[in-house]
This record gives sequence, structure tokens and C-alpha cells, in this order.
Amino acid sequence: MFKKIQGFSKLPKQEKIQWLAENYFHDKEAGKKVLQSYWNQDEKLQEIHDDFIENTISNFYMPYAIAPNFRINDKNYTIPMVIEESSVVAAAALVAKFWSDKGGFKATVIGTTKIGQIHFMYKGDFNLLKEYFNKKKNDLYKATDSITKNMRKRGGGILNIELRDKTNELDNYYQLHVTFDTKDSMGANFINSVLEAMAKAFKNEDIQIVMSILSNYVPDCRVRAEVSCKVEELYEKDAQHYAEKFIQALNIANAEVHRAVTHNKGIMNGIDAVVLATGNDFRAVEAGVHAFAARTGKYQSLSGGKIENGIFSFWLEIPLALGTVGGMTKIHPLAKLSLEILGNPSAEELMQVVACVGLAQNFAALRALTTTGIQSGHMKMHLNNIIKQLNATKEQTAILLDYFKDKPVSHSDVVKKFEEINS
Amino acid sequence: MFKKIQGFSKLPKQEKIQWLAENYFHDKEAGKKVLQSYWNQDEKLQEIHDDFIENTISNFYMPYAIAPNFRINDKNYTIPMVIEESSVVAAAALVAKFWSDKGGFKATVIGTTKIGQIHFMYKGDFNLLKEYFNKKKNDLYKATDSITKNMRKRGGGILNIELRDKTNELDNYYQLHVTFDTKDSMGANFINSVLEAMAKAFKNEDIQIVMSILSNYVPDCRVRAEVSCKVEELYEKDAQHYAEKFIQALNIANAEVHRAVTHNKGIMNGIDAVVLATGNDFRAVEAGVHAFAARTGKYQSLSGGKIENGIFSFWLEIPLALGTVGGMTKIHPLAKLSLEILGNPSAEELMQVVACVGLAQNFAALRALTTTGIQSGHMKMHLNNIIKQLNATKEQTAILLDYFKDKPVSHSDVVKKFEEINS
Repeated sequence: MFKKIQGFSKLPKQEKIQWLAENYFHDKEAGKKVLQSYWNQDEKLQEIHDDFIENTISNFYMPYAIAPNFRINDKNYTIPMVIEESSVVAAAALVAKFWSDKGGFKATVIGTTKIGQIHFMYKGDFNLLKEYFNKKKNDLYKATDSITKNMRKRGGGILNIELRDKTNELDNYYQLHVTFDTKDSMGANFINSVLEAMAKAFKNEDIQIVMSILSNYVPDCRVRAEVSCKVEELYEKDAQHYAEKFIQALNIANAEVHRAVTHNKGIMNGIDAVVLATGNDFRAVEAGVHAFAARTGKYQSLSGGKIENGIFSFWLEIPLALGTVGGMTKIHPLAKLSLEILGNPSAEELMQVVACVGLAQNFAALRALTTTGIQSGHMKMHLNNIIKQLNATKEQTAILLDYFKDKPVSHSDVVKKFEEINS
Repeated sequence: MFKKIQGFSKLPKQEKIQWLAENYFHDKEAGKKVLQSYWNQDEKLQEIHDDFIENTISNFYMPYAIAPNFRINDKNYTIPMVIEESSVVAAAALVAKFWSDKGGFKATVIGTTKIGQIHFMYKGDFNLLKEYFNKKKNDLYKATDSITKNMRKRGGGILNIELRDKTNELDNYYQLHVTFDTKDSMGANFINSVLEAMAKAFKNEDIQIVMSILSNYVPDCRVRAEVSCKVEELYEKDAQHYAEKFIQALNIANAEVHRAVTHNKGIMNGIDAVVLATGNDFRAVEAGVHAFAARTGKYQSLSGGKIENGIFSFWLEIPLALGTVGGMTKIHPLAKLSLEILGNPSAEELMQVVACVGLAQNFAALRALTTTGIQSGHMKMHLNNIIKQLNATKEQTAILLDYFKDKPVSHSDVVKKFEEINS
């Protein structure tokens, strides 16, 4: 029999944890202690974090790290990154240094247009609908006046309202496709509030509003990042050979979906780390970026590259809707500090920085994959993790590290060697 | 002039922070204090977190919350969730309760096959290559014997090695397409180690290995989640009307990429929250899921639904490569506790749970969007955030909450009202 708990969200944190312990923990006290060991000693600070969402019982630690030596548009950056995957920050720092004396990264914002849509069903004559829309258009702006007032003062607001006939895709389906400039905010709340007010003013007996919601697909809110150098500067030896192999790896990521997905995943390792560190929404970014990768009808690489006249160039173009005000950006003390580390950038500057970190990550991955493979570095990290799990002493750790210096690392082999040392 | 810092990664944490403060903080001491305020008091525990990645200087708090009352395959779950976006956990808990007395969620694992590929260039005759491959096949298994030993003991390992001609997509491009069963581990390290060893054994003068790497696109490592009930149980009134509107919203997400992306983003709010809480890699999941959404050549909804004979059913099918051993799952104390809360599931059971949370999230979003809109709930949260930023006292907060109870919330209006109260 399924037993529901009622009114759980209203229980104080301690009681939530007590209920959890009684129902799910093997060792009640040990489990409670783990949760409490992650609480902040500063009650006021903890309260800020408890209030971000509902039913919070602790803080999940994600590693907060920095990658120095990024040179982007001739400016010096140290990048705050939040990521649990080892070697991502190390790779970013390495690549940043590599490019810093080759002109650094160049980034350009291609557009900043955000999108929202009112989806509705209409069974009548399209010409009548068009007429109604044209007559109503001013009212739609007026209905959102109080919501857009502040954004208009900052130079943003509604850019355009367009009536779209989507009946080719679905019977009786139309849209109001609304474009926005939301300046330094990501704008989700703003756009949704505008759309709901607009839908209210737009609907009539013949127009059934299905839903009104922003789109996380923002191909016109886009940024491009790029690096280039002479081919011979790329590698210490066999530069032409390895540069060509690098381009082959890019071609493969365009030819084959299985590779493209992993290729782009590596880019997102860098992108999400900065998105998280600055308090932005990584699910929104992920969804928009991957749909963009599939825009031609075939899921492909987000980055491109070429060798021309002895010059190697490598670039990335992605949609990115980010904010440097609003949301969590200024409320989460570490997100706020991340923005300070980045020099309190505008949303456009943040787009550029994030894209460059994505490109750096991709460069690191492709360079490793097409030369030594990625496992030598990874396995070193993996070995360290296994040793940690085994609770090895310093002496045991030293023996294990030395032993596996030149051998393939597998969990069973490390455990076996560890047991040998202990016996 | 760009000034590089050398040997940064080797500096002790305190010196990294000192360098950061001197170069980037407006108020050095205040910035350092923020970073330190997030350190754990327990040095040994802090060390675990410092060691996950490189250049760590603090812990980024993500809210750790639980959603009770999930009934999945007739078993009772409380779901640990890590997410910064407000209302995601509240929505999950609400929907879980809603479905718990309507049969709950049903989930099925469709497959668990993981994929890795050796990408190579070959200019010769394909028949000769096939011959070479067939002759070599046994050696390829043998070359990975020591790496797969432990996995084979657990019932997993290499499932198949296939030679694929990809020259239609790219000149001279071939693959060894290798499939794996990695049991309860996500398997990234395992697969990459196997592939690199295999590539070494496979290459010859005519075969140029470009790279060897797992794929995060795993359409055959897939899970399906589903709910269903009588239409009249769905809503308190106008059930048929609202159920049809719900299905319309699904149809729209299949017809229109701008909606599909946001639709799927909402699903990922739930999925990523559990993926993060259990120490899994959300970038891998995101990339694989969104590419799957684009598999038909058009980016579409991951979920589907229908009304048939008075029964409403709603489902989700996604690829998910998750681990319940390996990686961070057992090293991060809260990830480990998350698995305990979930009853220490196998990877397959975790796939089912995660898919159900994604479906729950999608149900909550579509239900809200097609009835009251999502802003009423969101704006309440938004108002609370603005009030927090204003450092309002309890009395001021009460006045503001009451005032905006029935008015649209905009940042400027709240600030204005706040200033009014203060003046």
C-alpha cells in the first residue's frame, strides 16, 4: 500500500530531515550528520540558500575553481568555473595559456534577440485574423506598458510582434511570435509576464490561447568565438600533420552524429561551468545549443576549422541567452563574486567569455584525442579517485602512484595491488 | 600587455585566492571572506571536495532538496534533487502526489547498450579492410582482456565490434563501432580505455587512427516512463476540454522547434536535478537527449500523449547513460546519500526514476501553461527574490507581499513601493 505524506513542504527543515531519516536512512544518525555537515555555520547565509527553492535540506557542493590566463578580445580574464568533472578546468587553463601569446581569443556577438510566443488555435479565415491582429497590435503593446516600462528605460523591450500562420505544421495552429531585447537580464520572467498580458488582450471568442511562453531556442541571440595562428605554432613537431588530423576530427564530427554529440558535449563542459558559476540556467543554454546543432536537419558539430595559406583557424558559433542581472546572479554570493572576477561584464561580454571557454574546451579535447588520446590524463585522475576510495595512507598512495606510472589503470588491478601492499 | 601567471595550479589554495584577490577583487578582504565562508569546517571533508577537480578555491552551493510521494512501478520513492530554479521541486512533489493515487508512474528500460568508436582513415580497398578486420577481431578482444576482466566478472563487457564504412559521409572515413554493457557504471573511463587499447592493436601502415572515444549518443540505452488515468480524473472541472488542450500543447511541441526546445528544457529541469544529486554527468545526458529529440531530422518533443476511449496517457522516452557506481557517485558524500535515499538502485532502476521525474516535470509545466499560465506561481517567487535583494525587514516584507497579492510584479514597481514604505 502506497503511503502519502501530507503537508511535507510546510514542515520545518529539521522535521523534513527527521522524516527522511526514519523512512530512508540505513543509519539514521549517520545520514542526518552527512546532511548537517554541509550546512553553513552562518545561519543568515544558510537561510539565503534554503530559500532558493522548495524542500531544501542541505547544500550540494559543486567544485568552484578558476582558470587563469584567458586573453579574450585583448582583455585579461580569470574564469570562474563550477564543474564536477576532473580535467575540465586544467584543460581550460592550459589552452588559455597556449593561446594567450598567439593573439588570444576573439569573440563577437552576432545578435541579442530573445523570443517569446503565444500559441493559439483559430478555425476561421486567415485574412480576418490578419485584420484583427493589425487592428489589435497597438493594444497589445499598451496591455504590456506597465510590465515593459522599466525594461524600456534600460533601452530594451518588445522589438516586434508578428502573426505567424503555422497551419502547414498543425491544423488551425497560429502564433504571435514576439521578439525582445532584454538587455543584461536573461529575461525569462519578463518575457513570460509580457506574453501572458498580451494573450489576455488578444484572445476573443474565435481565438483559443493554448499557451504563452518564452522560447529557449534563440538562434538570433548568438555569439562567435575564434582563434587562429600559423600552423607551425600549433605543435612542437609534425605541425602540418597534426593540424590536418585536428581538422579531420572536426570533419568527422560533422559527418557522424555519434561523434558530434560527444564533441559538443565537450564544448558544453566549458560553457556550463561558467553558466553555473555566474548563476545562469544551464538547462536553457543546453537545450538551445543542441537544437541549434541540429538546425540543418542533421545533428552536427558546433565548431568549425580550416587551414588556409598556412594559417590554422578554429571557431565556435552558438546561441546563448545569459543574464548578468536578475535571477540568481546577484542573490547567490558566489555567483555575484564570479561576476566580479569577470569584471562585472554586460550580458554581451559574458556571452563572449562563455563562448571562448567552450572553444577552449573543444580545442583541448580535439588536441588530446588526435595526439596522445584522452585516457593518459583521465586515468591519472581515475587512479587518484580509486586510491581515495580505498582510504590509502600517504605511503600506500605513493607506492600505488609509482606502480601504475606506466601501466593501464583498472579498478580491479588497483584494488589487487592495494591488497598486496596491505598483506 | 598581457601578463601570464605561471605555475598557478601548483600554488596552495590560499595563495591562489590571494592572487585572485589582488588582481580581481574590488574589496580584497570582502571577496576572500565570501570564498572562505563557503569552506567546510571539517578539513578532511573539505579536502575531498578540493580534490575533485583542479584549481578549486571554494564550494559552489546548489540547493539540495527532496520531492516525496513518487510512486514508480508500485514502489515508494522520495527523490533527491539538485537545482537552482525555483518551483521545480515544488512542481515535482505536487505531480508525484497527484499521480500516486492514479496508479503512479510506470517505467521500463528499453535497452542498456553503450557505444564507443574508433574513427580512422583508410585509402585502400574496402574488401581488404574487411578481411583485415575479420582476421584481427579476436586480437582486438584479446588486447583489451586485462581492462575488461573486472567488467566481465560483473556480467558486462564488449558486446560487439563492427566495421563501418562511412565513406558516403566523408572520404576515406571508417569506424570500428563498438557496443558495450557497462552494468551499473556509466562506463566512460572503461570504454575509453578499451577503445584506446583496441586502436593500438588495430592500426597498421594503411590505417590512420584519428581518435578513439565513447559516444554520448546512446539511443539504445533508453528508458520509457508513462502515466495514465481516466480523463475525468485529470481536472476538477472541464476535464475533457483541458485534457484536449494538454494534447494540443504536445502537438505544438512536435510542430514547432521554438516550442519543442523549451518543452524539452522543462523535462530536463527534472532529469538534471536527479542526475546532479546522484553524482552523474549532466552534460553527457543533455547532449544525448537533445540529439535524440532531433533524430527524425526535425527537433521535436521528447514526450507524447493521447486520449483514447476516455483514457488519458502521457509518456516520455529518452536515452540515459547513468551510473550508480564509479565516478563521483560514491565519493561525494551527498551523492552517496542520494543513492541511499533512492534505495541504492541499480543503474537501470535509476534510469527509470530519472525518466519519471522528467515526465512529472513536463506534466506540471503543460498543466500550468494550458490552465492558469506559469507566471502566477513564478511571480510569487520573483517577488520574494526582489524583496530579499532589497533587504526588507519582516514588516516591510509583509506589506509588500500583501500589496502585490493581486497586482502584476515588476522589479521597478516593487522598488517603488518599497521606497514609498521607507519614505
